[in-house]
Amino acid sequence: MDNKALYKLAYGVFLLGAKAGDKKNACITNTCIQVAGNPTRVAIAVINTNYTCDLIKEGGVFAVSILDKKVPFETLKHFGMQSGRDVDKLDGLPLPEDVNGVPYMNWNCCAVLSCKVVDSMDLGSHTLFIGEVVDAVKQSDEPMLTYDYYQSDIKPKPAPKPEEKKVVAWKCKICGYIYEGSELPADFICPICGHDASDFEPVYG
Amino acid sequence: MDNKALYKLAYGVFLLGAKAGDKKNACITNTCIQVAGNPTRVAIAVINTNYTCDLIKEGGVFAVSILDKKVPFETLKHFGMQSGRDVDKLDGLPLPEDVNGVPYMNWNCCAVLSCKVVDSMDLGSHTLFIGEVVDAVKQSDEPMLTYDYYQSDIKPKPAPKPEEKKVVAWKCKICGYIYEGSELPADFICPICGHDASDFEPVYG
Repeated sequence: MDNKALYKLAYGVFLLGAKAGDKKNACITNTCIQVAGNPTRVAIAVINTNYTCDLIKEGGVFAVSILDKKVPFETLKHFGMQSGRDVDKLDGLPLPEDVNGVPYMNWNCCAVLSCKVVDSMDLGSHTLFIGEVVDAVKQSDEPMLTYDYYQSDIKPKPAPKPEEKKVVAWKCKICGYIYEGSELPADFICPICGHDASDFEPVYG
Repeated sequence: MDNKALYKLAYGVFLLGAKAGDKKNACITNTCIQVAGNPTRVAIAVINTNYTCDLIKEGGVFAVSILDKKVPFETLKHFGMQSGRDVDKLDGLPLPEDVNGVPYMNWNCCAVLSCKVVDSMDLGSHTLFIGEVVDAVKQSDEPMLTYDYYQSDIKPKPAPKPEEKKVVAWKCKICGYIYEGSELPADFICPICGHDASDFEPVYG
């Protein structure tokens, strides 16, 4: 079995907001599909150890903000790479609230789906929630962000290794004469101005 | 509530194969997401009136062939726009079978996920099946087909309305003289060669 085969599934990227009493949080997720119509229902899979998962179980509501392609990495990092258990993400970056009082995103967001949990299923690593969509608001005509596009165009690339600089020549600081070669002989004298090796600087290739 | 907001969700496009005893079928679907790891599980939503849905309920196995961007519309039409109740799609277009004996696609396919149903949920219009992935085989490095790309680049555009041709002039078939105007007087005589209106043909704008 080749687990990489599963990478070929297509996903969007979403801000998933939740609320239970006074507790509110939002995280980044990539699994949300419509699973039924009339009434309209969506399914989301949320990691069980995730604070947002706890809040959805407790509060029974969630909001899916469908992010667009222009969303900055910093926004994804803020909501996706720290836990609501450690940091109040909404204090750091306040968000408006939907009909259920759940935080949603009002920038770089194509649409917001406000949902009430009607069923759920514990699948081991994740809980699958079925939400009835009680409100759906389109916010922009920007193309939606796909997980593929996030990987190729938004996620920062690892910094390139500092290039190994190679000395390819030496230049006389006095007259500009170039000595071709990686090593300047210690007793070299500039044939133009007569200065010695201490007045030469390396030229990198 | 704006139902079009839900169009902003991202999907792939899949051939969904099923088998129950000797009965086999395959249809086109766009909902498949990984919903858990270790064991790896996927969720698919299938319309209840769909023959493939019956076979999955009965046989407890399915195969998701993740289609690539080069899949021809004809393939999608063959599997997606007729019912296995009316036509033996696999007789018309034979497919190989996976570890569960379920048909999958071996062209224009990025990967195949072979699944056994471990849970299901009737959601009214659709049934949501949770499948444990018992085998996953990558087939190619082609980019996966998204539903968005299907809509924009694969689905044939409605034929443009035949342009209303307007007669803007009349041309003498004998000498080429052009009479400017949409209607040629019945008693018109060509001022160049002297032929009458019956020797003129319309010129369209």
